[in-house]
Amino acid sequence: MSAAPSSLPAGHAGELVTVDHDAYGVAGAARVTLNRPDAFNALSDALLGELQAALDALAVADARVVVIAAAGRAFCAGHDLKEMRANPSRDYYAQLFARCSKTMLTIQRMPQPVIARVHGVATAAGCQLVAMCDLAVASEAARFAVSGINLGLFCSTPAVPLTRSLSRKAAFEMLMTGEFIDAQTALREGLVNRVVAEGELDAAVAALAATICAKPRDAVRAGKGLFYRQLEMGIEAAYQLAGQTMASNMIADCALDGVQAFIERRGAK
Amino acid sequence: MSAAPSSLPAGHAGELVTVDHDAYGVAGAARVTLNRPDAFNALSDALLGELQAALDALAVADARVVVIAAAGRAFCAGHDLKEMRANPSRDYYAQLFARCSKTMLTIQRMPQPVIARVHGVATAAGCQLVAMCDLAVASEAARFAVSGINLGLFCSTPAVPLTRSLSRKAAFEMLMTGEFIDAQTALREGLVNRVVAEGELDAAVAALAATICAKPRDAVRAGKGLFYRQLEMGIEAAYQLAGQTMASNMIADCALDGVQAFIERRGAK
Amino acid sequence: MSAAPSSLPAGHAGELVTVDHDAYGVAGAARVTLNRPDAFNALSDALLGELQAALDALAVADARVVVIAAAGRAFCAGHDLKEMRANPSRDYYAQLFARCSKTMLTIQRMPQPVIARVHGVATAAGCQLVAMCDLAVASEAARFAVSGINLGLFCSTPAVPLTRSLSRKAAFEMLMTGEFIDAQTALREGLVNRVVAEGELDAAVAALAATICAKPRDAVRAGKGLFYRQLEMGIEAAYQLAGQTMASNMIADCALDGVQAFIERRGAK
Repeated sequence: MSAAPSSLPAGHAGELVTVDHDAYGVAGAARVTLNRPDAFNALSDALLGELQAALDALAVADARVVVIAAAGRAFCAGHDLKEMRANPSRDYYAQLFARCSKTMLTIQRMPQPVIARVHGVATAAGCQLVAMCDLAVASEAARFAVSGINLGLFCSTPAVPLTRSLSRKAAFEMLMTGEFIDAQTALREGLVNRVVAEGELDAAVAALAATICAKPRDAVRAGKGLFYRQLEMGIEAAYQLAGQTMASNMIADCALDGVQAFIERRGAK
Repeated sequence: MSAAPSSLPAGHAGELVTVDHDAYGVAGAARVTLNRPDAFNALSDALLGELQAALDALAVADARVVVIAAAGRAFCAGHDLKEMRANPSRDYYAQLFARCSKTMLTIQRMPQPVIARVHGVATAAGCQLVAMCDLAVASEAARFAVSGINLGLFCSTPAVPLTRSLSRKAAFEMLMTGEFIDAQTALREGLVNRVVAEGELDAAVAALAATICAKPRDAVRAGKGLFYRQLEMGIEAAYQLAGQTMASNMIADCALDGVQAFIERRGAK
Repeated sequence: MSAAPSSLPAGHAGELVTVDHDAYGVAGAARVTLNRPDAFNALSDALLGELQAALDALAVADARVVVIAAAGRAFCAGHDLKEMRANPSRDYYAQLFARCSKTMLTIQRMPQPVIARVHGVATAAGCQLVAMCDLAVASEAARFAVSGINLGLFCSTPAVPLTRSLSRKAAFEMLMTGEFIDAQTALREGLVNRVVAEGELDAAVAALAATICAKPRDAVRAGKGLFYRQLEMGIEAAYQLAGQTMASNMIADCALDGVQAFIERRGAK
């Protein structure tokens, strides 16, 4: 619960997901760290359960922004294939993907903006995790692939956020070839927002987190919800919802005070 | 009503929106100029009313293309915050955003292509205006932000066209950080079509306007309507509508004559 | 039916569309070649009929990937304007565009990934063909335009895939100006996946085809279907369908064996 050091914490023994508050020294920034470094942070049943619990807890907590980071060399290698192979049942797989999809949708539904901190390889559901986050900052060392096709398992659930973030042909190519793209390509394609040198990753994540933490909380929360809801509507319905959301936002103290302060600052110049 | 000089007209006193026909010396190009330079062309109730009236009049006029330009140093700073703050009523805000959304949708619904001529700062609803225009030409000096979040007012209505023009993560970043992007970034992200040196902005706008004015009018009008309608459909329904639109278009004189002329030109070679 | 030489075949006399199996020396790669070079491969009624028949036959054949190539200097100049002009009937045009749209949708619906091999000019429905293919590899000499507007015939059906591949303003500009974009611009905009030197086009197409042919066939087929179906859904329904698709995929032998082999390889290291 203390301010986190600039390097990632090792995590407590036995914890597959660790949570730090006021991470990077930024008040209001929570960090969720995938902590199964020896398995490249593969999303086992147990890890998914801890991740869901951590996100659910943060969704109703005071945090203003959530960073998803990962311990060890990789960001996340996707599902735990060994565990999957040991349970060759359609019901098991259906439940596994349903649980994983719920966790992914939780990222979008929770009120805080979620930033992926990608320092290494992100493959399959690990790449999906990056695509689902609202924002992503990558180091030059990050690489991305949806490589299930190589094993005969098309990355169907990763395709959902990938096709909503990248151009259609770029997404199809990644999904059908399973090939890696580097960080600069990911930036150009829209999969990440920023790419920085390895040594500057924490500083870049901290800066982005601090920027968002400095914004009025209610406006951020109402805004994130509106952002995704209106995207699924026709443009007229989207405008109707957005107009109502903005009217409610404007009548709240945070906006009335913010606008008033802006007018006074401008008037003082 | 005369051909406009290459610099923007000052506008008549008291007019918040001025309209020039055959602007830039291009027959068929109408220019709508936001003319509240001392207020950075903020969209006050009065300005919005004049803008709506100007667009409504042009929609049924002979103009073949409409340019939206702005007087003074900024392109448009969004809503008039002072006026908004002076009317702290939910009903007022709901009506204001509904009116503004109607004006924005008018740009998309009117039969003529609409080009934003962006010479300076475009923020909040000013950035939305650029995103809603069918095309946008910016000078190197233009800068874009959806900065409402800084005041506690998330740019919900600007999010509607922004998320339909930019990649998802880029739009989220702009809306949550409120930070400016420069003209080259706007070009790369899809917010504008062209970026030119400041001194070449009018020439670039004139060239694009002239290109469109030279196209058969009925095809342009039918095409613009089809463009946006089919975007809200599944691909099969979109093809059905597009095929019917194209059959109607082809049987019209403008296409039969155009195709005939093309065949003859090619035969003559 | 023999392995194709690296240069395009001339096609048999009288055939408007030729089909090669194991093209480029890649087992499983079928090549469909538009073979009306003197007419820039314009999509006449007869050519469209042969193309539809070729795609329908391949859809139920053993091919694992389909390349659409073209003979002569141009890739495809769109509809056959002379034939269209000779049949000035709304019914004829409605049927023509419906047939063409069916062929275009067949590309998306057939189980194999379809790669456009674009070596020259692709205009109007020729540009649409590139946009509809799942993947596209272009030579530096390729150029793209939706130029119907120049003749008074807005490219309505090409707009359908174009607006689903490019950013909105870029698509609008192409459709309203009719101007060409070069191969590098097409790459940046998302219309093609790769651009290579003219002399390397076949090698690049062959490499991409071979990559896909090496993937487990059932996963590729299920994946392609899922890719487009989920794109037309809201994100929650998309996740539900994707999760079910992936569970069915995982329980199939191709995935169980592939995952098992992966685990053993990793264990052996």
